[in-house]
Amino acid sequence: MDLSNNTIERICKIFGHLDALEKRGVDFVSSKELAGEIGATEYTIRKDISLLGGPGYTRKGYEVKSFKKELGEKFLLTKRRKACIVGLGRLGTALLDYENFQEDGFEIVAGFDCSVNKIERIRTSIDVFAVSRLEEIVEARDIELGIVAVPAESAQEVVDLLTKAGVKGILNFSPVKVNIPTHIVHLDMDFTNALRFIAARFIMKKT
Amino acid sequence: MDLSNNTIERICKIFGHLDALEKRGVDFVSSKELAGEIGATEYTIRKDISLLGGPGYTRKGYEVKSFKKELGEKFLLTKRRKACIVGLGRLGTALLDYENFQEDGFEIVAGFDCSVNKIERIRTSIDVFAVSRLEEIVEARDIELGIVAVPAESAQEVVDLLTKAGVKGILNFSPVKVNIPTHIVHLDMDFTNALRFIAARFIMKKT
Repeated sequence: MDLSNNTIERICKIFGHLDALEKRGVDFVSSKELAGEIGATEYTIRKDISLLGGPGYTRKGYEVKSFKKELGEKFLLTKRRKACIVGLGRLGTALLDYENFQEDGFEIVAGFDCSVNKIERIRTSIDVFAVSRLEEIVEARDIELGIVAVPAESAQEVVDLLTKAGVKGILNFSPVKVNIPTHIVHLDMDFTNALRFIAARFIMKKT
Repeated sequence: MDLSNNTIERICKIFGHLDALEKRGVDFVSSKELAGEIGATEYTIRKDISLLGGPGYTRKGYEVKSFKKELGEKFLLTKRRKACIVGLGRLGTALLDYENFQEDGFEIVAGFDCSVNKIERIRTSIDVFAVSRLEEIVEARDIELGIVAVPAESAQEVVDLLTKAGVKGILNFSPVKVNIPTHIVHLDMDFTNALRFIAARFIMKKT
């Protein structure tokens, strides 16, 4: 299956919304509602779904539970995945205890920092280690995802360590462009770019 | 001008890359390089640029400095914007001192929290206030952007406060769907969805 990043992004958002609906006990959802939630056109949503051979559209809309199950199975979105966080500064520790990861199938099973002092003092229920043990722990605990929350100057080094350790995906919070081998799936969380995206859309509003 | 969110997202990324190139002293960039950096096809990049009436393509590529200037002017990306952060837990304080905002034209001019105790103890160079003063401060300091970093259960209340105070854009880090009036530009930073996006792409890799 070869889908564009935009399609996959929409699918993840649809899955998230179906999950929220299921929790609220809602049985059906229209493509119009999905489109509104996801910020895409109804046409795009219907096209995505038909591309995936998704569920049929009934008069009541898509059936939430079966649609979610189908997406989850197709994209292995319900598989539990283990992740680690490298860099236990304020952002890293905030992520360490981010409860929603857990709820949504992502388990943070280790934190790493280069400061032994920090590791000794940190208060968290998650196991934390010196970064020198990263390779060993990633392998021993079957960690698939690495979350990078170190300062810009250490980001490349940490990415190289994670790559060597064999993670399959990297979520990068460092505000710097890092070189990541193409066999690893990665995403940059760029806070500045997020603000820029909002500001760029100001000009499209009548203000 | 009416552009899709995807186009605007690409433009912001192009602007960010041009900015990085300019800082490194690079004079020209090809559409191929831009495409690779942004994660889009060369065709898409060229189409975006021609849609904007962007600079001509020379044999050496686009001229970095003038291209950046043009995008910046068209989307007011070089205008300095004032922002505030609501919720000074670990994520909020991490964002409070995120240096890159400053570098890229976003100035965090206030932080808010409902805990007076927290406000008194926090160590930062940025002015912090009780959330009860939000409306007053947003108005007095001409704050255009609100960054929401409160727990899920307070998110809607904070969004309502920011709306009433008259911000133009909201960046929401709370892991919950909030209702935001359509005249306000907003973006959700959903960490779980980011991990899901990475995991969903695993199946596209030969592993």
